Amino acid sequence: MPSENVTLEGHIIDALTLPTVLDEIIALGASFEIVDFSVGTRHEDASFARIKVTAADDTELANVIDRLRRHGANPETVEDALIEQADVDGAFPPGFYSTTNLATEVRLESRWIPVDRPEMDCGIVIEDSTARTIPMADVRSGMSIVMRGLGIRVSPPERPRGDERQAFEFMSSDISSEKPKGLLVDQVAAQMKEIKGLGKRIMWVVGPALVHTGSAPDLCALIRAGYVDALFAGNGLAAHDIEANMFGTSLGVNLHEGIAAEHGHEHHIRAINELRRHGSFDAAITAGVFDDGIVYHLVKNGCSYLFGGSVRDDGPLPEVVTDMAEVQQRLRDLIWGSDGRDLVGFCIVVGTMLHGIATGNCLPASVPLVCVDINQATVTKLMDRGSFQSMGIITDVGLFVRELAERLAPHEIRSTRS
Amino acid sequence: MPSENVTLEGHIIDALTLPTVLDEIIALGASFEIVDFSVGTRHEDASFARIKVTAADDTELANVIDRLRRHGANPETVEDALIEQADVDGAFPPGFYSTTNLATEVRLESRWIPVDRPEMDCGIVIEDSTARTIPMADVRSGMSIVMRGLGIRVSPPERPRGDERQAFEFMSSDISSEKPKGLLVDQVAAQMKEIKGLGKRIMWVVGPALVHTGSAPDLCALIRAGYVDALFAGNGLAAHDIEANMFGTSLGVNLHEGIAAEHGHEHHIRAINELRRHGSFDAAITAGVFDDGIVYHLVKNGCSYLFGGSVRDDGPLPEVVTDMAEVQQRLRDLIWGSDGRDLVGFCIVVGTMLHGIATGNCLPASVPLVCVDINQATVTKLMDRGSFQSMGIITDVGLFVRELAERLAPHEIRSTRS
Amino acid sequence: MPSENVTLEGHIIDALTLPTVLDEIIALGASFEIVDFSVGTRHEDASFARIKVTAADDTELANVIDRLRRHGANPETVEDALIEQADVDGAFPPGFYSTTNLATEVRLESRWIPVDRPEMDCGIVIEDSTARTIPMADVRSGMSIVMRGLGIRVSPPERPRGDERQAFEFMSSDISSEKPKGLLVDQVAAQMKEIKGLGKRIMWVVGPALVHTGSAPDLCALIRAGYVDALFAGNGLAAHDIEANMFGTSLGVNLHEGIAAEHGHEHHIRAINELRRHGSFDAAITAGVFDDGIVYHLVKNGCSYLFGGSVRDDGPLPEVVTDMAEVQQRLRDLIWGSDGRDLVGFCIVVGTMLHGIATGNCLPASVPLVCVDINQATVTKLMDRGSFQSMGIITDVGLFVRELAERLAPHEIRSTRS
Amino acid sequence: MPSENVTLEGHIIDALTLPTVLDEIIALGASFEIVDFSVGTRHEDASFARIKVTAADDTELANVIDRLRRHGANPETVEDALIEQADVDGAFPPGFYSTTNLATEVRLESRWIPVDRPEMDCGIVIEDSTARTIPMADVRSGMSIVMRGLGIRVSPPERPRGDERQAFEFMSSDISSEKPKGLLVDQVAAQMKEIKGLGKRIMWVVGPALVHTGSAPDLCALIRAGYVDALFAGNGLAAHDIEANMFGTSLGVNLHEGIAAEHGHEHHIRAINELRRHGSFDAAITAGVFDDGIVYHLVKNGCSYLFGGSVRDDGPLPEVVTDMAEVQQRLRDLIWGSDGRDLVGFCIVVGTMLHGIATGNCLPASVPLVCVDINQATVTKLMDRGSFQSMGIITDVGLFVRELAERLAPHEIRSTRS
Repeated sequence: MPSENVTLEGHIIDALTLPTVLDEIIALGASFEIVDFSVGTRHEDASFARIKVTAADDTELANVIDRLRRHGANPETVEDALIEQADVDGAFPPGFYSTTNLATEVRLESRWIPVDRPEMDCGIVIEDSTARTIPMADVRSGMSIVMRGLGIRVSPPERPRGDERQAFEFMSSDISSEKPKGLLVDQVAAQMKEIKGLGKRIMWVVGPALVHTGSAPDLCALIRAGYVDALFAGNGLAAHDIEANMFGTSLGVNLHEGIAAEHGHEHHIRAINELRRHGSFDAAITAGVFDDGIVYHLVKNGCSYLFGGSVRDDGPLPEVVTDMAEVQQRLRDLIWGSDGRDLVGFCIVVGTMLHGIATGNCLPASVPLVCVDINQATVTKLMDRGSFQSMGIITDVGLFVRELAERLAPHEIRSTRS
Repeated sequence: MPSENVTLEGHIIDALTLPTVLDEIIALGASFEIVDFSVGTRHEDASFARIKVTAADDTELANVIDRLRRHGANPETVEDALIEQADVDGAFPPGFYSTTNLATEVRLESRWIPVDRPEMDCGIVIEDSTARTIPMADVRSGMSIVMRGLGIRVSPPERPRGDERQAFEFMSSDISSEKPKGLLVDQVAAQMKEIKGLGKRIMWVVGPALVHTGSAPDLCALIRAGYVDALFAGNGLAAHDIEANMFGTSLGVNLHEGIAAEHGHEHHIRAINELRRHGSFDAAITAGVFDDGIVYHLVKNGCSYLFGGSVRDDGPLPEVVTDMAEVQQRLRDLIWGSDGRDLVGFCIVVGTMLHGIATGNCLPASVPLVCVDINQATVTKLMDRGSFQSMGIITDVGLFVRELAERLAPHEIRSTRS
Repeated sequence: MPSENVTLEGHIIDALTLPTVLDEIIALGASFEIVDFSVGTRHEDASFARIKVTAADDTELANVIDRLRRHGANPETVEDALIEQADVDGAFPPGFYSTTNLATEVRLESRWIPVDRPEMDCGIVIEDSTARTIPMADVRSGMSIVMRGLGIRVSPPERPRGDERQAFEFMSSDISSEKPKGLLVDQVAAQMKEIKGLGKRIMWVVGPALVHTGSAPDLCALIRAGYVDALFAGNGLAAHDIEANMFGTSLGVNLHEGIAAEHGHEHHIRAINELRRHGSFDAAITAGVFDDGIVYHLVKNGCSYLFGGSVRDDGPLPEVVTDMAEVQQRLRDLIWGSDGRDLVGFCIVVGTMLHGIATGNCLPASVPLVCVDINQATVTKLMDRGSFQSMGIITDVGLFVRELAERLAPHEIRSTRS
Repeated sequence: MPSENVTLEGHIIDALTLPTVLDEIIALGASFEIVDFSVGTRHEDASFARIKVTAADDTELANVIDRLRRHGANPETVEDALIEQADVDGAFPPGFYSTTNLATEVRLESRWIPVDRPEMDCGIVIEDSTARTIPMADVRSGMSIVMRGLGIRVSPPERPRGDERQAFEFMSSDISSEKPKGLLVDQVAAQMKEIKGLGKRIMWVVGPALVHTGSAPDLCALIRAGYVDALFAGNGLAAHDIEANMFGTSLGVNLHEGIAAEHGHEHHIRAINELRRHGSFDAAITAGVFDDGIVYHLVKNGCSYLFGGSVRDDGPLPEVVTDMAEVQQRLRDLIWGSDGRDLVGFCIVVGTMLHGIATGNCLPASVPLVCVDINQATVTKLMDRGSFQSMGIITDVGLFVRELAERLAPHEIRSTRS
């Protein structure tokens, strides 16, 4: 039976890496032998393991090796990556290497080349001795695609160890609604400040519940204070936000309509119709159709934004992108910056599962991700992608953003807030 | 087939009363004829209806009449209530009248006597020409019990009409997590202020999530500011609160332990053991075992409180009442005041289903009830009792109480809050 | 102040219609006077009311009239509908009439014309003296659009009355997870049989949870037995279904993978890639890529199907429609049949919010709708559209479909089911 | 700074034991050095580690040692356990050893004595050279209590390793509603059969949702087939069950009442009253008050049962134990058998959080525990106790028990089932 040595080093014992790797080998029906093992005697020392993995046949072995890579267990045999030409448009050759969202290198002509734009479930294309991830749909016949096998190396972010986790409890494993909420707001606020201090961008992914729960003015305050560099949302968020600002609904009515069904109330559909008549957010703002709210502030503050459509949309609003392939491409640009070299430094998903999962699919594991929702199932699903720098918070979306605005943008909060 | 006329008056059309009554008659297998009907032509005018109800036999008819009473449709025939002697201890005679939580009168010797302490699912006992509700377990052989039939009259609180609901959206029917949360906090704060202004007591029913979510200091602020006259909770709330204050757990650790399982962490069980060694909250406070937190403030501010045990309790703490019959009796005293003449003016249930339902069972329909929980199922269940003055709020318990304290007791909030 | 008489007739008291109408008038800030009222004295008799509605100005009045129409309260003044030419592509003239999903007529040259394809939140276009609903995006400059005002008449389905509801508890108001589940399965099975007996089509809207919970074989049995005429789903359902059938995953592994994150497991992405290489479901089946499962049975049994994309999709699979405007158009064809004259007779939504809401938006109120999900929030949201013939069932999607197959297609259930 | 060596052996790497231990040391603010380490080279080989733990002071060290014990890391220093006399009734001396639910030994006069009845959060009392757990409330002044420190040894059940887990996916870590449900029912059925084959008892902990969802007849079938040796529930389950059988409610009505509020419907309160008049289940059955249902079958089949009261109860029924201290004592007897030597072999919790947590508190970790609920939060909370042999299933309680009865007791299912 074929076998291959993989090596692991770092805090592989107290960071659960080694057990996870051994577990995975057995779960995939292969077996292992620990060939070499040196243990760091103290907490701060690194350990090292060389593990011989044996599988039923070469295909199985290649499969196991692929899986182990995502835990940082890379094969010891060093050879160049196997390359094959794509034979059809829009699909990879069978046996292509399917990417993780971790930092990855491929070996070409005896040199390790970093793969640009790590993203899950893509392939790797080689062009002019550089490597980048490529979505399935973008493949064109004749492209050089990296195949499954050796010659690929993955470096997972090292899982925070006991004492560091203590200091900054940013772990997805224990999602619960029963946590000290004030403290969690403090943590998110502190991290946002830190990210801005580093000159990096903050990306928001937001669902319409933010408007329904009355905290749109708080998000506006955060936009004014510079904490929203990029925003990804759907037609619903924009439509409810514009509607609220167009019809000057007073608090009482606002309350009443916040309760109403997603569909069937006049204002919603009339607001969309009016916007379509103007053709763009900017034209409608210039015409005085609305002069406050999330969309208004995004436009006026020059934020990057993307509104992606969905099958349930009314209208949709102008500027909502209705083709999903285009939305995904523009989402990647939002994440990586217009020049592809300005990766967002922090991402917060608030009250949306659909757009949150879409973002999680494209986001590299190195970007800290916070997900806030009142529904435990939504948070669990979004946290499943397994980034170590992710945090799920089960709480009220409205009150959370409110408290965040109070910490980060107290002078920008206006009295209109409800 | 036997029949009986019932009458209804007030805003019986636009307040859904008449349709509900007609619906119920049909649902119970009886039939109706509208004998008399005068409709108020304008919104502010009252209407009147006389409805002849016909059922298969006398038992069925009595059953229908009983059900209609809770909507304020009282039988037209006026006779004295039927009284029977209890024949055993701890149970009513078969055919006893089972009470609602609405204002009720019984007719004795041609006079209508009000029934003291309206409460659901009790019986009515007559003593010295006065009437009061009595729980099943308190019945003693020989007592005079009111039987099902005529001679009983119920007055439901009139359901708020369209325009009033508009102003103060206090309806249980539309529970949703997507409401303007800031506005809901404002409403609850306003009503609490109003109740205190009227000199009435505010009762809190609280679950341990309040401690886990880090808002115990906010409830302490509300206690100091006089917004907690009575508190009903379980062993868990008190134990977690005292533990947090005994072991001076710093924020980091606090966070860590907020996550931990309900069971199995040392501090919890050691805190309970220490309290048991002192025998009472007061003795432990005097001995310096703890000097802050919810229990401490309840004791120091002379609030009424009741901790009722349950099958899952550790310990329990001293002062936790372990016999359920005694808990229910003392809960009634908490609600009605020590002299039975100081009914609470407002009740708020926060993060607890068990103690919330127990309270709902004993509370008269006239007391406004607000229920706050992150779990929709809990809120729905608590709102099921159908009081018109109830409001269910699906939100984060910790952030809600935090915002409430900021509105009602800003000067009492201390820096220790997390 | 301007006023208009509206009339209502039928079981307007015991079916809650009249109170709802009066409520709505007040909620919208208008006032009413009941000009005429004759009450049906017995349960089976119809009642009649003429209500004078007064509002602040003509716009307000038009708005109130529009809202009352959806409860069947139509204005007494009879004039032709107001028509205006669309002035831009893709949007209505301001003041257009926004449709409900109820049966509607417009008055043209003194005759009442039925509006084809009732659907929510559309407009009405007049062509050659016929009327049909038209989505905002399909409007072209110069079209004749019906404006808000008189000359429009809506007939809501009459709400089932007390005794009928008793017999067939098909009401959305009381959604709870604590209902007799066997009975609910019986009811849905009975209604599906009845619909097929009438020669009408059954439409399914299905989420990927059906595959994860192991009940894809049960849906296949229902397809074989003829209970799935049309199916609407997303890329995820098809991808998981094909993956399960391509990789012959045994139960143990299946279990393991059923748990896995939506993303990141090899098989999923490789299955999609393989299908894209073949270009269509049919080509892949012919090539022997998969020979069982939901997609296979849909194709082999000649069912109508539509897979609509979303922003979170991998791939997507061939035949998945990525443009949302096109998906909505094809969804309407699925609902109304290829010739627009074969409206589905029953619609069941299982384990999906996104595609369920999209369907609810397009479906006329006359089609009975059942929504099954384990999450109460999803069911509540889908039931909000207020059809009287809708039922929300909170239960396990997998076990529900399993029991449904046992009742409707016992001989088609194969041993592969897990 | 004081230190102590602890040792670990077994599959401590691939079963996550060693990393967890190292993690815990750091989390508690102590530090470690791995003094000795020999790794099993192959999957089936055991490993061994000797870890030197250093803490700030003796108290901290004792605390850390206590925590490590529950992972099977026992201190190397061998001395007799420290014993102290209880100085008050109802509480332990400060510094008592607080138990886990794992197999435990204490060292007395140089011999290791097993501790009888392992249970969480108790103390250990020594009587006549034997050791047993004792709840805080049962302590009497003068008893010999084991103190925290050395001389105590804990043996956790070894966590199933990769390949075994594969075969029988019985892990609490990945609770999800999206699992193959038929397979889960198969697994639970298989394990119940196996347990009965071994002559062990099966214990059920059941909430009233079982009755509301219409599956009481299925549980009756399981009782008749011998799969219910012991049952623990509350007043609600028994009252709803008896009510359903007393009032012969037909399906339609049943449906209607299944929806109704927990309180306020006649039948419920009249059923309880009638039972109280007879004084016991047996007397009521003899008198013909009810002749079917869960309570009837429990009595007629001689099953052990315990109904524990709670603060929200109506009545309660006769035989419901109202004092919580007594309920806990009798629950322990239910678990361990009347002679304390017949520990249940399997425990299933269905649709109840309150009684489920109470059971989890008393149950030794060696008893496999399955928890079934439609609410994810309930399942998560019950699974938190960390037994390796526990499984949480998020599904419909009614359909689950239905399918279980079909597998285990097909001939006992009667047509009355709904």
